[in-house]
Amino acid sequence: MKTTITNVWILTMDQNLTEYKEGFLTIEKDKIVAMGHMKDYVGSTNQEEEIIDGKGGILMPGMINVHTHVSMVPFRSLGDDCKDRLRRFLFPLENECMTPELVYHGAKYGIGEMLLSGVTTMMDMYYFEDEVAKAADEMGIRAFVGETVINFATCDTTEPYGGLGYGEELIKKWKGHERIVPFIAPHATNTNSEEALIKANELSKKYDVPFSMHVAELDYEMDYFREQYQTTPIGFLNDIGVLNDRLVAAHCIYLSKEDIGLMKENGVGVAHCIGSNTKAAKGVAPIKALLEVGVPVGLGTDGPSSGNTLDVLTQFKLFANFHKVTNQDRSIFPAKEIVKLGTSSGAKVLHEEKRIGSLEVGKKADLVLVETESVNMFPIFDAYSALVYSANASNVEMVFVNGKCVVKDKQLVHADLRKIRKDLNQAMDDFKVEAVRRSQL
Amino acid sequence: MKTTITNVWILTMDQNLTEYKEGFLTIEKDKIVAMGHMKDYVGSTNQEEEIIDGKGGILMPGMINVHTHVSMVPFRSLGDDCKDRLRRFLFPLENECMTPELVYHGAKYGIGEMLLSGVTTMMDMYYFEDEVAKAADEMGIRAFVGETVINFATCDTTEPYGGLGYGEELIKKWKGHERIVPFIAPHATNTNSEEALIKANELSKKYDVPFSMHVAELDYEMDYFREQYQTTPIGFLNDIGVLNDRLVAAHCIYLSKEDIGLMKENGVGVAHCIGSNTKAAKGVAPIKALLEVGVPVGLGTDGPSSGNTLDVLTQFKLFANFHKVTNQDRSIFPAKEIVKLGTSSGAKVLHEEKRIGSLEVGKKADLVLVETESVNMFPIFDAYSALVYSANASNVEMVFVNGKCVVKDKQLVHADLRKIRKDLNQAMDDFKVEAVRRSQL
Repeated sequence: MKTTITNVWILTMDQNLTEYKEGFLTIEKDKIVAMGHMKDYVGSTNQEEEIIDGKGGILMPGMINVHTHVSMVPFRSLGDDCKDRLRRFLFPLENECMTPELVYHGAKYGIGEMLLSGVTTMMDMYYFEDEVAKAADEMGIRAFVGETVINFATCDTTEPYGGLGYGEELIKKWKGHERIVPFIAPHATNTNSEEALIKANELSKKYDVPFSMHVAELDYEMDYFREQYQTTPIGFLNDIGVLNDRLVAAHCIYLSKEDIGLMKENGVGVAHCIGSNTKAAKGVAPIKALLEVGVPVGLGTDGPSSGNTLDVLTQFKLFANFHKVTNQDRSIFPAKEIVKLGTSSGAKVLHEEKRIGSLEVGKKADLVLVETESVNMFPIFDAYSALVYSANASNVEMVFVNGKCVVKDKQLVHADLRKIRKDLNQAMDDFKVEAVRRSQL
Repeated sequence: MKTTITNVWILTMDQNLTEYKEGFLTIEKDKIVAMGHMKDYVGSTNQEEEIIDGKGGILMPGMINVHTHVSMVPFRSLGDDCKDRLRRFLFPLENECMTPELVYHGAKYGIGEMLLSGVTTMMDMYYFEDEVAKAADEMGIRAFVGETVINFATCDTTEPYGGLGYGEELIKKWKGHERIVPFIAPHATNTNSEEALIKANELSKKYDVPFSMHVAELDYEMDYFREQYQTTPIGFLNDIGVLNDRLVAAHCIYLSKEDIGLMKENGVGVAHCIGSNTKAAKGVAPIKALLEVGVPVGLGTDGPSSGNTLDVLTQFKLFANFHKVTNQDRSIFPAKEIVKLGTSSGAKVLHEEKRIGSLEVGKKADLVLVETESVNMFPIFDAYSALVYSANASNVEMVFVNGKCVVKDKQLVHADLRKIRKDLNQAMDDFKVEAVRRSQL
């Protein structure tokens, strides 16, 4: 059984940024098997082909969210504008109220939200990450799931660095899954000992899985390494031998020239979270400099506590405006370069560029149809511009992951969002009481 | 006949930012006649009351877009990332291709888009502004319509400054309309002679209508006044006696301390267009400093060529992140302060605060119901946060202007958007040919 989407403006996001302004694309099983101009579409020789009329919409690769904490949906809109929110709300509420159930239901909800916004791959790090993996498996998203390692006992461990043990089990359990890649996720450079970071790297090497952590994100993180080691977080990671191409470094707001050189040299990828970083007043990561030397950069929403929405389209708009202002150049990062970051470049960060990130025959059928009938989507002289400057998550009409249709007519196909929300709401009972109590402190 | 909206989280945006977490609001004719907690709602004693269940949505004042060029919808997504787009695309295409029909159909489309996103009042400046006024009248939005005055012959005038004559006719024709306020709109400080600016101000004074123009927006504008007059644009306007409380100054990116003092002293209001200004890499206006001295500030989307979307909700998010980063403080401008800018503060800029901008008994019934059932709107600990950080235009469920329901179930009530789009598309024929030609130059 094949499925063909017809009458679409295809942005392949391949090396040459090939476009088919009136195009078609055919899926068979989990792969793209044909693509081209409508005039070259011959249709199937037998009945076994479903035709979907794309009605002039934009067909693009599934978007890749390279950094999130999806189970943090319960925190959304809580204490957004507070100073030191991490230590005032996030850490204590996680330690007191996070249960496997809450992580699971939060993940199902947030994954639903991502799929509905055209995100087909996420890189997630959190606690009880096995629950996130289960939710991802059920919801049909492609997911990198990483267990957090941190220097204190957490909701899912009884001692500091318990995530190392949990993480190894997670890796053993999920490695080899078709859509799910387990990994290990030290929380940050300054919330882990040298020994723990080395162990995490060894696990990553042993099982050949990624590792990801928050790097060069906080002013006090920078101070710490300057004072303790007379270096930067990146310099420190290099010194202890854990800077390598399995590392996805999230945030990287504060980088020196030397840091950028080390990252390039060691093949490190970057998860850039412009929305989260700017909402928290932290600053704008030096993405231009990273891309100039060839460090792969993808876009991350961060958790729904930090960035509030889980869609990559919102990151497009924020990326454009922030990097244009920062570089004082309206022509820098034209829209197509930004769409690249959320698709093919994100795939490179995850070393998945051979399978996903662009629409090419033989690649996995992870794709998104953005409708152009809504009021904000007319006229379109440039489809990349429409995606970056006009579109929002509500324009996503249809989504396929691994060849399977997971969103149709702007609704989840295999899951009932109302039920997911009801379940999550119930699981949040204790969390809500404690959240409100802390807000009133 | 009364209409009551029940079961809503009301953000009144009044002086005290009164909220009714489970509230109701009653409209009669063009006004709000009752409001309060659901427990105090007694219902009508007779049949003549329509009840609308708000289903836990957020009810807020209609949003006020204090700066736009709504008829520029045809330009959307054209040359977004080009240097000097104004002189490469905008001016020439306006002069060659703008017709009364295109202005009219563009305005109908863009006004439809605004209403659908919860904008109930716009301040617009363009050419053939009588067509914009007609479109606004038909679509039911509250509109300030200003004819552009500029130092060259334009699409609607045969000689420089022809807008002064057109503008006076516009004012005479529309003054006294219930929802439409005509005004005069010198294009910018550097595209008008001293004499023309003085004449525009005199017209504004004579008819007691606002005047609005682009001020301190461009680097070459700043250079011009520095070199020619050894002053700033604001200083120049003050020197020639046109800085007064009828002026709505759009953009104001580059302001000195002295400028801000002069603006306060003379009662000038500011239309802040964060999306447009940052997309064009121009910078971030000093809003903190303006608000500190008490200059009223509203939010503008600018035209759909510059900001691409016409909704104030997008400005909320951009405002938050840009001003937090610029001020290096995540707690500055908490969400409620931002919602204020888009509602009550915008009304002050237009000197309409006695009629609109907040939900209060006796005020005009300009209001917006934002649904909270979509995936991005859960949970909500803080309704202001949900509006600023989570919501997008697609969450707007219902809109009233002047007591009349103009959007229901996310659709225009009195207009057919498909027909408006078809008409606009037809009117764009010549424009499109020329636009594509210029893109290929």
